[in-house]
Amino acid sequence: MKVKLLKYTPDPERTVAAAARLCYSASGVDALLDMGCDEVERLIDLLRQRGHESPFEHASFTFAVEGISRACSHQLVRHRLASYSQQSQRWVRGDAAWHVVPPSVARRPEAARLFADFLARAGEVYRALAAMGVPREDARYVLPNAVATRMVVTMNARELLHVFRLRCCQRAQWEIRAVAYLMLRECRKVAPLLFAKAGPPCQVDGTCPEEWTGCPRYPGRRPS
Amino acid sequence: MKVKLLKYTPDPERTVAAAARLCYSASGVDALLDMGCDEVERLIDLLRQRGHESPFEHASFTFAVEGISRACSHQLVRHRLASYSQQSQRWVRGDAAWHVVPPSVARRPEAARLFADFLARAGEVYRALAAMGVPREDARYVLPNAVATRMVVTMNARELLHVFRLRCCQRAQWEIRAVAYLMLRECRKVAPLLFAKAGPPCQVDGTCPEEWTGCPRYPGRRPS
Amino acid sequence: MKVKLLKYTPDPERTVAAAARLCYSASGVDALLDMGCDEVERLIDLLRQRGHESPFEHASFTFAVEGISRACSHQLVRHRLASYSQQSQRWVRGDAAWHVVPPSVARRPEAARLFADFLARAGEVYRALAAMGVPREDARYVLPNAVATRMVVTMNARELLHVFRLRCCQRAQWEIRAVAYLMLRECRKVAPLLFAKAGPPCQVDGTCPEEWTGCPRYPGRRPS
Amino acid sequence: MKVKLLKYTPDPERTVAAAARLCYSASGVDALLDMGCDEVERLIDLLRQRGHESPFEHASFTFAVEGISRACSHQLVRHRLASYSQQSQRWVRGDAAWHVVPPSVARRPEAARLFADFLARAGEVYRALAAMGVPREDARYVLPNAVATRMVVTMNARELLHVFRLRCCQRAQWEIRAVAYLMLRECRKVAPLLFAKAGPPCQVDGTCPEEWTGCPRYPGRRPS
Repeated sequence: MKVKLLKYTPDPERTVAAAARLCYSASGVDALLDMGCDEVERLIDLLRQRGHESPFEHASFTFAVEGISRACSHQLVRHRLASYSQQSQRWVRGDAAWHVVPPSVARRPEAARLFADFLARAGEVYRALAAMGVPREDARYVLPNAVATRMVVTMNARELLHVFRLRCCQRAQWEIRAVAYLMLRECRKVAPLLFAKAGPPCQVDGTCPEEWTGCPRYPGRRPS
Repeated sequence: MKVKLLKYTPDPERTVAAAARLCYSASGVDALLDMGCDEVERLIDLLRQRGHESPFEHASFTFAVEGISRACSHQLVRHRLASYSQQSQRWVRGDAAWHVVPPSVARRPEAARLFADFLARAGEVYRALAAMGVPREDARYVLPNAVATRMVVTMNARELLHVFRLRCCQRAQWEIRAVAYLMLRECRKVAPLLFAKAGPPCQVDGTCPEEWTGCPRYPGRRPS
Repeated sequence: MKVKLLKYTPDPERTVAAAARLCYSASGVDALLDMGCDEVERLIDLLRQRGHESPFEHASFTFAVEGISRACSHQLVRHRLASYSQQSQRWVRGDAAWHVVPPSVARRPEAARLFADFLARAGEVYRALAAMGVPREDARYVLPNAVATRMVVTMNARELLHVFRLRCCQRAQWEIRAVAYLMLRECRKVAPLLFAKAGPPCQVDGTCPEEWTGCPRYPGRRPS
Repeated sequence: MKVKLLKYTPDPERTVAAAARLCYSASGVDALLDMGCDEVERLIDLLRQRGHESPFEHASFTFAVEGISRACSHQLVRHRLASYSQQSQRWVRGDAAWHVVPPSVARRPEAARLFADFLARAGEVYRALAAMGVPREDARYVLPNAVATRMVVTMNARELLHVFRLRCCQRAQWEIRAVAYLMLRECRKVAPLLFAKAGPPCQVDGTCPEEWTGCPRYPGRRPS
């Protein structure tokens, strides 16, 4: 799995701070970005304290994601406040050899062998169907969820914070959690202030909104 | 494949007409819904003529969709101005025996046999992995795109018109086109005025925004 | 101010419960709605405990709102996951006599007089401009924020819960708070289970995500 | 009125082309951005010809807008697939002296005088109410629609193309049309390929989807 930050709004922290500044003061637009780093930090903290999330939307991040399974991409695109471009199995030839092996399979030698053989078989069937004249868009019906894909994903910082809240959680499915942590790592490199408090509620707030007694990290709140 | 209209905004046409009436006149809210069928029809036509689409958003339709492939559901959920609840392969036991066979496969006996055998094998592998202790959420990585799913889908009339425009088109993938036509049939039963002009641009406008020379129905416009 | 629930998804609670049922079980779509009230309640509670909010989107509510100020409507439409139709000041003749008086003005006799005189003057200027040939869409530039408007607003239950969380809060501006409480009252009449835990965080969770020491109801959490 | 492009996705055209390339080919993510300008142009043209709009969403543009009326900002924020931060009349002191005069008023001396006097009066009443102890958030109820505001607005290229389609049209209200043209001018400076076909349908497609006989530029299509 590879997650690469392709592009992002330049000076994302300053951009968010500028929007905050405009809301709270009579600053004109010409000097909106002119402020010291201390002021940028102060304004971002202020937004966080007030729960004023919308200025975080002005900073946008575009990732290329490669080598995630179709099971994972199906989950990811359920976040609707985002933009996606995905390598189409309708148009691009499917390749079952390029796939994701879940850790729970990989660590069981017998399961791993069965899994590998089945994926190889999937590739054979795909190619055989194509050879019989079945169009690519229909041959792909045999491709398993494990087959890998590539996506370009754009989200703004507000939505990213929401995604990290849900998907960095222990309860999230392991593959999307891995994607989320890689995205977060990239974000922190270029916008540490915006993502200072990113992650699951147990890490960020010291609390958990879910009732789930099985979590090793946080026992969950009691039913109300 | 089964598409069932579970619920919808009562009097969807009158509701849309009431919103139009409010925009264009000084009508008070108490009598907003009080008008004859002629007036409802006149207002809906007016909205269409002016390209004023937003009042169509006030009528909402909730469908249960059953027996579509995961390939199809993955496409459907890309329409972001909608609400989805999908049967989870993480929590509900996967069943490869319940799957969709593309017509291009079904009409080639050899392909159909290969396809059926492979799907049966997928079921065996899924169960074998589970028996080895692989959790359900990871065993599903072997399930092919063809495996069927169920969804509850809610869209408003404006978004439905957009979906029908794209997905009832000859160029759309056959399975999502079938879903779209079944949804349209359901909508027309309960709101014929709202969906009078629903469908692909070639049927609705007599024109096609795409340049695609291979369409049997419409030769496509010339490059500008 | 008047808030009237015009239409809503029939059986909103059963609809949400049906979506939950589909996610968590292998229920077919034909019997999806067939369950007792106890089961509806159990499923809605389960969604709430798990923080699984998306099934609440399948229940949609359409309100007519009348007699709110343009200041208030400007705030309301900032909730983007919703549909609005508003009486246009471009097309419908403005009427400054129909306006909202803030309580802080009404309870100060001198302020109330000044306010009333000024609104009357606004009406005169509006009519005078129109008489000079200024189009209605430009004459409205003199109309004050206090001038009243009418809207049709559609939101689903998930977004409504979000709106009630923000706008029923003591810190919300008084007029939009009044609208929110009237909407909540309407919702509770027809879907008490869905809106059982609706309102500001201090009432629902016994906690407040904002740091604001001036709130009479909740002292705010300490800075972390 | 001032419209300033504060920030935008670097290399917006290459970013959109990279997303297209990923959809249509087996390109890996590392070399996704490596292509010549010819290839960028070819891919953007291809997207346009196929009506494949979603890759345009990966390029995001953030504007500062200053000196537009509240009437105009109210219209602008109705575009929901966008992000806004607006100078708050609740927190920032209102200033009726800073306002927008519609051209239809400005060119009628008597109307202009009446308008100016009324706006001056609005400022006096606002200050008088504040002096009586009315909070700023309530005193603003007397401020007319003409009073100017500042906003930070972020939209992606797909939504911008939609906005330009609607708001650069002759039928759009004059002030939002002026904003739209200034935004388009800024966009064209940095992404001429993305916005080559931007503007109203009459200019872009040589056709008009509305039936409106009063347009000087385009007589409108006949009712079907």
